[in-house]
Amino acid sequence: MIEVSIIGGSGYAGGELLRLLLLHPEIKVKQVTSRKFAERAVFLVHPNLRRITDLKFTDPQKMEPCDLLVIAIPNTKSMGMMEGFMKLAPKIIDLGADFRIHSQKDFEMWYKMDHEKPALLNQFVYGLPEIHREKIKKTNFVACPGCEATVSILTLYPLVKEGLINLAKIIIDAKMGSSQAGLQPTSSSHHAERSGVVRSYKPSGHRHTVEIQQELNFGKQPQIMISATAIEMVRGLLVTVHTEVCEEISEKDIWKAYRKYYGQEPFIKIIKERQGNYRYPEPKILVGTNYCDIGFELDKENNRLVLIGAIDNLMKGTAGSALQCINLMFGWKESLGLEFPGLHPV
Amino acid sequence: MIEVSIIGGSGYAGGELLRLLLLHPEIKVKQVTSRKFAERAVFLVHPNLRRITDLKFTDPQKMEPCDLLVIAIPNTKSMGMMEGFMKLAPKIIDLGADFRIHSQKDFEMWYKMDHEKPALLNQFVYGLPEIHREKIKKTNFVACPGCEATVSILTLYPLVKEGLINLAKIIIDAKMGSSQAGLQPTSSSHHAERSGVVRSYKPSGHRHTVEIQQELNFGKQPQIMISATAIEMVRGLLVTVHTEVCEEISEKDIWKAYRKYYGQEPFIKIIKERQGNYRYPEPKILVGTNYCDIGFELDKENNRLVLIGAIDNLMKGTAGSALQCINLMFGWKESLGLEFPGLHPV
Amino acid sequence: MIEVSIIGGSGYAGGELLRLLLLHPEIKVKQVTSRKFAERAVFLVHPNLRRITDLKFTDPQKMEPCDLLVIAIPNTKSMGMMEGFMKLAPKIIDLGADFRIHSQKDFEMWYKMDHEKPALLNQFVYGLPEIHREKIKKTNFVACPGCEATVSILTLYPLVKEGLINLAKIIIDAKMGSSQAGLQPTSSSHHAERSGVVRSYKPSGHRHTVEIQQELNFGKQPQIMISATAIEMVRGLLVTVHTEVCEEISEKDIWKAYRKYYGQEPFIKIIKERQGNYRYPEPKILVGTNYCDIGFELDKENNRLVLIGAIDNLMKGTAGSALQCINLMFGWKESLGLEFPGLHPV
Amino acid sequence: MIEVSIIGGSGYAGGELLRLLLLHPEIKVKQVTSRKFAERAVFLVHPNLRRITDLKFTDPQKMEPCDLLVIAIPNTKSMGMMEGFMKLAPKIIDLGADFRIHSQKDFEMWYKMDHEKPALLNQFVYGLPEIHREKIKKTNFVACPGCEATVSILTLYPLVKEGLINLAKIIIDAKMGSSQAGLQPTSSSHHAERSGVVRSYKPSGHRHTVEIQQELNFGKQPQIMISATAIEMVRGLLVTVHTEVCEEISEKDIWKAYRKYYGQEPFIKIIKERQGNYRYPEPKILVGTNYCDIGFELDKENNRLVLIGAIDNLMKGTAGSALQCINLMFGWKESLGLEFPGLHPV
Repeated sequence: MIEVSIIGGSGYAGGELLRLLLLHPEIKVKQVTSRKFAERAVFLVHPNLRRITDLKFTDPQKMEPCDLLVIAIPNTKSMGMMEGFMKLAPKIIDLGADFRIHSQKDFEMWYKMDHEKPALLNQFVYGLPEIHREKIKKTNFVACPGCEATVSILTLYPLVKEGLINLAKIIIDAKMGSSQAGLQPTSSSHHAERSGVVRSYKPSGHRHTVEIQQELNFGKQPQIMISATAIEMVRGLLVTVHTEVCEEISEKDIWKAYRKYYGQEPFIKIIKERQGNYRYPEPKILVGTNYCDIGFELDKENNRLVLIGAIDNLMKGTAGSALQCINLMFGWKESLGLEFPGLHPV
Repeated sequence: MIEVSIIGGSGYAGGELLRLLLLHPEIKVKQVTSRKFAERAVFLVHPNLRRITDLKFTDPQKMEPCDLLVIAIPNTKSMGMMEGFMKLAPKIIDLGADFRIHSQKDFEMWYKMDHEKPALLNQFVYGLPEIHREKIKKTNFVACPGCEATVSILTLYPLVKEGLINLAKIIIDAKMGSSQAGLQPTSSSHHAERSGVVRSYKPSGHRHTVEIQQELNFGKQPQIMISATAIEMVRGLLVTVHTEVCEEISEKDIWKAYRKYYGQEPFIKIIKERQGNYRYPEPKILVGTNYCDIGFELDKENNRLVLIGAIDNLMKGTAGSALQCINLMFGWKESLGLEFPGLHPV
Repeated sequence: MIEVSIIGGSGYAGGELLRLLLLHPEIKVKQVTSRKFAERAVFLVHPNLRRITDLKFTDPQKMEPCDLLVIAIPNTKSMGMMEGFMKLAPKIIDLGADFRIHSQKDFEMWYKMDHEKPALLNQFVYGLPEIHREKIKKTNFVACPGCEATVSILTLYPLVKEGLINLAKIIIDAKMGSSQAGLQPTSSSHHAERSGVVRSYKPSGHRHTVEIQQELNFGKQPQIMISATAIEMVRGLLVTVHTEVCEEISEKDIWKAYRKYYGQEPFIKIIKERQGNYRYPEPKILVGTNYCDIGFELDKENNRLVLIGAIDNLMKGTAGSALQCINLMFGWKESLGLEFPGLHPV
Repeated sequence: MIEVSIIGGSGYAGGELLRLLLLHPEIKVKQVTSRKFAERAVFLVHPNLRRITDLKFTDPQKMEPCDLLVIAIPNTKSMGMMEGFMKLAPKIIDLGADFRIHSQKDFEMWYKMDHEKPALLNQFVYGLPEIHREKIKKTNFVACPGCEATVSILTLYPLVKEGLINLAKIIIDAKMGSSQAGLQPTSSSHHAERSGVVRSYKPSGHRHTVEIQQELNFGKQPQIMISATAIEMVRGLLVTVHTEVCEEISEKDIWKAYRKYYGQEPFIKIIKERQGNYRYPEPKILVGTNYCDIGFELDKENNRLVLIGAIDNLMKGTAGSALQCINLMFGWKESLGLEFPGLHPV
């Protein structure tokens, strides 16, 4: 039984991880901070946790040492405090972007600000178990990927690694739910404005590009272009990845590549059915699960390959992946506490 | 051609009326105020009006005289300024609650504040054309009903007037969309929180009660109880009205009462089909229209009568009804500018 | 480890129970029948079960003996086959309506058909653990309640039992999701027609009335009137129950009644907050859980009490409650396999 | 006043056109056929037309001559009957695909069947007024484009015509509503299955490809690849078009091209704002309108240009465009009967 605390527990990512930790058989949640809700019951903010816990939010000033600290505060806010966090706990998981990018220069270019602790950058492992499992087992510091990066990297990784697709022309058309924008109400998140949208909120220049390029760079940097569209959905993220293949490739080669890398992966499924309503990945049946579902369609005529990846942005995209890393770091079964299979219909 | 200005044109009610006025053949929109958006194009706030108008919002300080002034500011904000408004225009339509209640005492009890201009209360006609058509034609001052009051009164009026239902036990179970709450973003209107809710936001004590009681009081005040539930919908309002009838009543009597009062009404339809998907009133096919659809089911066994009323809260519930009043005040065809029949599917 | 089989496993209720059973530590799923999908993988119909099971649907003709048989076929279809089922397994759970009503006469009146096996009616216990826990522990035959009956009975039970509300005037205004209608596509379930509806599909005469009256009859039969409205939601059911109280009742009395009966209940929560977005029961945060959340608002002025009950119709309303009964019948912890706390945001 | 009849008036496209025609000042609707609903009131199928018309569906066998016949039957069903239709009316608008493709070979390749009347192919004008206005004015026979083709062609046309984008790499990522699939209930259109999907229903090989290639072929055929994803939406269609530009191109050049071709177009708006919630085209505010909204974002770094086009698939995508053609064919104002500006919020 280890003690885990969460810095920034009133947000959606922190709340989701809290839910998972509270039900985890090897973990005791020690403290969860919130400046705004300090001393108030956690379940007032996360109503699904009523009856599950009587925990109250702690003032960030009152943090005590613990075995593992999870940082769930807005991007770029953790780097300045990281040294302090490291004094509180020997192991740290950061859900934010601050330590994902190994290159200080890349970070500063994409985030348009100086990095406050560049010396720590190389201490963090990029927390994608399917790609960095062995490193995660051995490290004390994990920086969890962004949700779009997670699904995009997982969808592309075996094909890029095997050299099956043209690195120069990878277009990621992402469809996103509203939970990704966090819990701060704005005019654009106001229900009457946000409901039913097909909103091109980031047609180019998405920051997760740099993570994807970092993780798919095996000697040659791929050219990644993300277009992000917000749709009517709370949880969930689907990427349609438009790629170009060389002429000789067959469906079999694609299956082979996915099986080679993901044949034993507990949380990746290749979905490609000839019948039924769920012939390709579908985020709604992944809600609450830690799966990344991947599908593809090869257009031989045009030498195009369309890849389809789906996740729950708060689970495999954030908190679920984080718990998967925690399980690895502490030597537990990788899927412990992540067994929920998802619902249908929903 | 008359000149109309709107005080408070950046909100949903003001914007909806603006849309109607811009396409009305007898009306020229002169000024539309917004403190926050002064000098900026109206279509930045109301994107459906792009290409329809180049109008910019006017600072409220810069209002000029016009033929008709429409007040579309939050409840209880117009009473203090009404005398000033009366100097700007000979005719006034107030969309807010300030002058709906004839009794100062009732207003103050339900709105928990003093009325600042009680002397003006009796100058305003309650703007429900189906009930006060002749008065509206002759008045210069109209106070438009609340949306829930509109649909509830119209659904109940013929039956109460004819003495067909027990006045002591009228329960209005209202299902509402998010546009009714206005355009101010809050935690409860945040998409990830508001999406998919069935939220009992006002189980009792709804302020529109007092309007309904006022309008359905023909010697004896009915006991009205509203329970309001917010559901997944942007526009639209449906009331399920649970009433008790005396034993001898038949379906025919109900049809007769509705036909007697609404047989010639341009915007009321009685919906009661034996087949099809739309056997009862359905707010989604009323979106954008000025109709109030009414249906009913008689439960002879229990002497209960369930009434069902549906409107678009921003149209028949606010702006559409207001234009209907304007048409009456100026002697035009009552349905002028309100011809949109609604969409299907939608 | 016991062996359980499901008759009728391709529907939503059967599929939901299958999901729960597959993850239950004491249960082995033996066979799941489907005439239509016999020999095909279960996960083609229930896509969330991919990776969880390789089970194929069995032809109903090929059923083998097991420890417990769950019947998940349409209402009125099990009674004719029940004697055959009883030869296959010593214990039976029927999710349908056939054996819920103890009175043959009542069944025949509400279902407008003869009961084929009236002699078996009194062998079945009504499967609501909160009310019949001890009987369920001892019986071999359970008839699970309808989902609307479940939430309505649980919401009303303590107040009726304690004599706090007038039995003559209980109005249940139910708001329902689309999954309740089952998986058969029809014009009214067609997405373009069903989306965004507020459809009064059963304003009076709902069949669950008879179950509620049976379970809330403590010497005097209550008069129950249900109006059912389908809204934009897949899973979930909320009832707004309009009742009349005697003059002297206070909020405290209501709290007391609920605490007396539900103080120790693992799956009932009383929700009544002064702050936050989730001040009353909300079905969306119950999706996937076995909870029944109950709230209330007392309107002293009018001697009215508005009760609010929410469940996931496929969980506490069907499959979850069924598993709760199974746990009781086999002497396991009542909440085994029902620990999922629900998601937020969602 | 001309007389128009509709063949196949019970579907969504036929119903939408019927709505427009009934309110058109120069048109009298003569007959509307439906085999299934013959002799029944049109408003039972199209509930928004109640009170607008008392028309009943006519048996297709009982068609009489008229001035203009609109064919709204499933794709590939009109070609065999076209000669018969031509005897009924001097002018014909076909909403289906049968006569859109000038090349018999292309038609047969994409629709995988023989064309029954290839001799008629060159008599039909492709009904996109923005591109073929003069031809439409003079023709008697119009084949209206598919909805995806409409929005894709309009979004691309000026840029392809001006040679600004690489013809070899045009990827259209289409997001679609459920009304596009028509009114036939299926398992995949069943609300509980269709609700909330992000369903990759046609990752490659969409039939509208051939129309787009035909219309954008100015000497060299572009390579068009469509990926279609069904999302939670009833009406509406948005395409995100991923293109490659040559290095020297600037935003100004793009604006210039759009202005050159669309500067005077009544139904095309270029949407590219720096502020507000509606900075790019958004289908929900186009519901019920005949607009095609177009936006773009230039990614200089990667020489990519992302185009965004939005329409209401039943209006500009089908019925609205058809009426626009009718207005041209009869010499009326092009926007007659198409003035609805759309709603906000919605």
